[in-house]
Amino acid sequence: MLQSPNIHQPLYQKETAKDIIKGLQRELAALQQSLRNAKIPVIVLFEGLDASGKGSLIAKTIANLDPRGYRVHSTDVPTSEDMRRPVLWPFWCDLPLQGEMSLLDRSWYNRIIRLGQDDVEMINTFERQLCDDGYLVLKFFLNIGKKEQRKRLQKLADNPATSWRVTREDWQHYLDYRQRADTWADLLTQTNPSYAPWHVIWNEEKYDGTIEVLTTIRDAIQTAIAQGAPTGHHAPLESFPLLPMAPLDDVDLSCTVTPEAYRIALKAEKAKIQELHSQLYRKKIPVVLCFEGWDAAGKGGAIRRLSSAMDPRGFDVIPVAAPSKEELARHYLWRFWKNVPKDGHIAIFDRTWYGRVMVERLEGFTPASRWERAYQEMNEFEAELTQWGAVVLKFWVHIDKDEQLKRFTNRQETPEKRYKITEEDWRNREKWDAYRMAVDEMLAKTSTENAPWIVVEGNDKLYARLKVLRTVRQALEVRLQ
Amino acid sequence: MLQSPNIHQPLYQKETAKDIIKGLQRELAALQQSLRNAKIPVIVLFEGLDASGKGSLIAKTIANLDPRGYRVHSTDVPTSEDMRRPVLWPFWCDLPLQGEMSLLDRSWYNRIIRLGQDDVEMINTFERQLCDDGYLVLKFFLNIGKKEQRKRLQKLADNPATSWRVTREDWQHYLDYRQRADTWADLLTQTNPSYAPWHVIWNEEKYDGTIEVLTTIRDAIQTAIAQGAPTGHHAPLESFPLLPMAPLDDVDLSCTVTPEAYRIALKAEKAKIQELHSQLYRKKIPVVLCFEGWDAAGKGGAIRRLSSAMDPRGFDVIPVAAPSKEELARHYLWRFWKNVPKDGHIAIFDRTWYGRVMVERLEGFTPASRWERAYQEMNEFEAELTQWGAVVLKFWVHIDKDEQLKRFTNRQETPEKRYKITEEDWRNREKWDAYRMAVDEMLAKTSTENAPWIVVEGNDKLYARLKVLRTVRQALEVRLQ
Repeated sequence: MLQSPNIHQPLYQKETAKDIIKGLQRELAALQQSLRNAKIPVIVLFEGLDASGKGSLIAKTIANLDPRGYRVHSTDVPTSEDMRRPVLWPFWCDLPLQGEMSLLDRSWYNRIIRLGQDDVEMINTFERQLCDDGYLVLKFFLNIGKKEQRKRLQKLADNPATSWRVTREDWQHYLDYRQRADTWADLLTQTNPSYAPWHVIWNEEKYDGTIEVLTTIRDAIQTAIAQGAPTGHHAPLESFPLLPMAPLDDVDLSCTVTPEAYRIALKAEKAKIQELHSQLYRKKIPVVLCFEGWDAAGKGGAIRRLSSAMDPRGFDVIPVAAPSKEELARHYLWRFWKNVPKDGHIAIFDRTWYGRVMVERLEGFTPASRWERAYQEMNEFEAELTQWGAVVLKFWVHIDKDEQLKRFTNRQETPEKRYKITEEDWRNREKWDAYRMAVDEMLAKTSTENAPWIVVEGNDKLYARLKVLRTVRQALEVRLQ
Repeated sequence: MLQSPNIHQPLYQKETAKDIIKGLQRELAALQQSLRNAKIPVIVLFEGLDASGKGSLIAKTIANLDPRGYRVHSTDVPTSEDMRRPVLWPFWCDLPLQGEMSLLDRSWYNRIIRLGQDDVEMINTFERQLCDDGYLVLKFFLNIGKKEQRKRLQKLADNPATSWRVTREDWQHYLDYRQRADTWADLLTQTNPSYAPWHVIWNEEKYDGTIEVLTTIRDAIQTAIAQGAPTGHHAPLESFPLLPMAPLDDVDLSCTVTPEAYRIALKAEKAKIQELHSQLYRKKIPVVLCFEGWDAAGKGGAIRRLSSAMDPRGFDVIPVAAPSKEELARHYLWRFWKNVPKDGHIAIFDRTWYGRVMVERLEGFTPASRWERAYQEMNEFEAELTQWGAVVLKFWVHIDKDEQLKRFTNRQETPEKRYKITEEDWRNREKWDAYRMAVDEMLAKTSTENAPWIVVEGNDKLYARLKVLRTVRQALEVRLQ
């Protein structure tokens, strides 16, 4: 993909080119308003060989833009926080809002090359997920020849004001020009889907590349406003090895434990988890624990018993409620990605991304085309976490309808618990059967080997808490072996 | 302040102590709900000598709490992002929401000791600002004797599961016990105001310290709910050396520049700024540029001319609109602190924290007691930025009422500009005189030597843009000398 053109002559005369560029910059500024109205989020990323002119092209792209609608992200060097998260984490965190534009100086591509990883599949999945969610993803690769690279590096090095910009690494890259160009060419070829294709720009001439980039951005935005951004939905669905799950109605809720046995076992499990937590921290293994379940099923109590066994500096409980305005204006996984734990840390999600296929599905907040796709997206999200090295466990805390009624009534009648019960809880209860079917489908479609669902029999609270602790303890033991 | 008690005997018997602790944990959980209703944000910070039991005390504090209402922050080691910002930056970013609680394992005190800084004044200002804004700040220092420290470190070191936790630094701290204890004692004595006093806890006994901490937290929260958190308002007002500012009505708005002179000067200024920007980046000098001005005064145009001279990877434009729900639920400076630039980077604020004493004052969004205090708080904020090493410039882009009318009318009549003008702009215009008086007061009270206001004569847009660029260029030249 990285061939240089046969003819090395500028397409445009200097004055003509400058006028064209000015015109394009004005057009882009005018398009910003329509983009905002169309609520399309746009990501424009620039990759390229060293000294190929990324910075100056970004400057020319934003020249006339209203700063309220874009943000430039420089992602060349990962921060210490980035290094403790999955590769894509910083890019998820920086996703633009609907109607806004992110310009990336280097991107996940560079990160992967820098880290010596070659996870093309992960990139393709990421971009498909973005496009499926309505993001317009524009990718530019700026290409220059070896001679031109040398000339530019030398010019920077000769000027005392800029010489510090040219590092030993840059010269090494120059020496490895051929090999680096080949590596990039390979990567580009493997990451070139119709919905997020590469635009390789020959950027030796002063104006031609700029005109090409600005024209491409303008046309893509115009098309997206007229027809919507291209979606990746038709991409081949990946299948995940699923664990068989019994329907909820078959779950035996008669399991119990005596308070005495509970007390003894709880103490033992907590002591073990405490020790395992310390080992995880040391070995930098991240853990993601997810809790879902019926209202009043006892998620909170189970989470409290579990977390009280842990050093509070090593875990976070992330309560998940209805999304805020800022969260709604981004990919629905954004707020969960943001809370991915550091390595060696534990994130406990009190409700999760699975709201997508439960409340959002049943209350009609999300159209079918979107929540149906979510099973795969969530499997992919969790696969990425486990590939990164995380332990992922998902608990469905289960009770039956009678037990729920008993607990609701108890909450209503106990003054200090009354705040826990709302009108909404009663409304949800009326839809029990619909929810049960949705949960059965969720369990069947998203219980993967690496990120399994564990149904917790919750009619007996003590039994449920113990099962959660035991399951976590066992999973950590296996991982630490 | 760090004396050990005379009598080394536990106050409580084991079983009694355990019951008391359980009771206190339940009380704290019950208080959480009232705290939320009272909208009081709470910060509980734990400092202490090594192995004094901070982690375990935090664990006991949160044992029964609803995770939706608190967050634990471990701030022992600064991240690479922290290191590129003012010392207090990470703590500002982590401020809890109203009605919620932050528990800090180490804090700004440790950061200052770690960095070898001794900026007691900065800490006192920070805590006063928090208390003035309604934060309840609880500070615990856990103290143990040298022998006990040795015993604890040895115990950790002897256990293969925990030996890795004891670092060479810990043993060094043990050897330097006396000196470290003295350093802390000094720091504590100097940072012990009535509204945020230290609670020094002798934490050698297993239960006594816990009971003391939990009781203190409970009592402080109860008192704050009943009477409001203690405020620091009565603290002595610091005075800043102010620059004399002419009232807006005396500004000569007849300044102009010919298009030809503008074109030539603009090009020269941009070239110089480009070079200076590169030097700033290299020398890691941060820059904060603030833009305020009448509606349609030309802030956007000036910002665009300025930023087009800069490498887009080295600056951010931060547009400031009405605060979101999350922003309103924290200290009003929070959203600006979050956007403090990295060293070597430039932050351009399109509207600023001065909204506090303009729109918030005049529309009655903020009571007088609060916006009156804001002049000092903003001077303090900017003083912290400049002490950190930042260049801070504040521009008031000024036009007269006739010029504004002309521009409003032009916007209304030009289809592609119409979105820029709203009903609110017309309403604000009616309050011109009130705004003018507020701006005059603002300029008079907050134009400090380190962070001066520059009034830009804006009736001639070209002149205004040029003045902005020239002022920035000169300030950078001075700083880089």
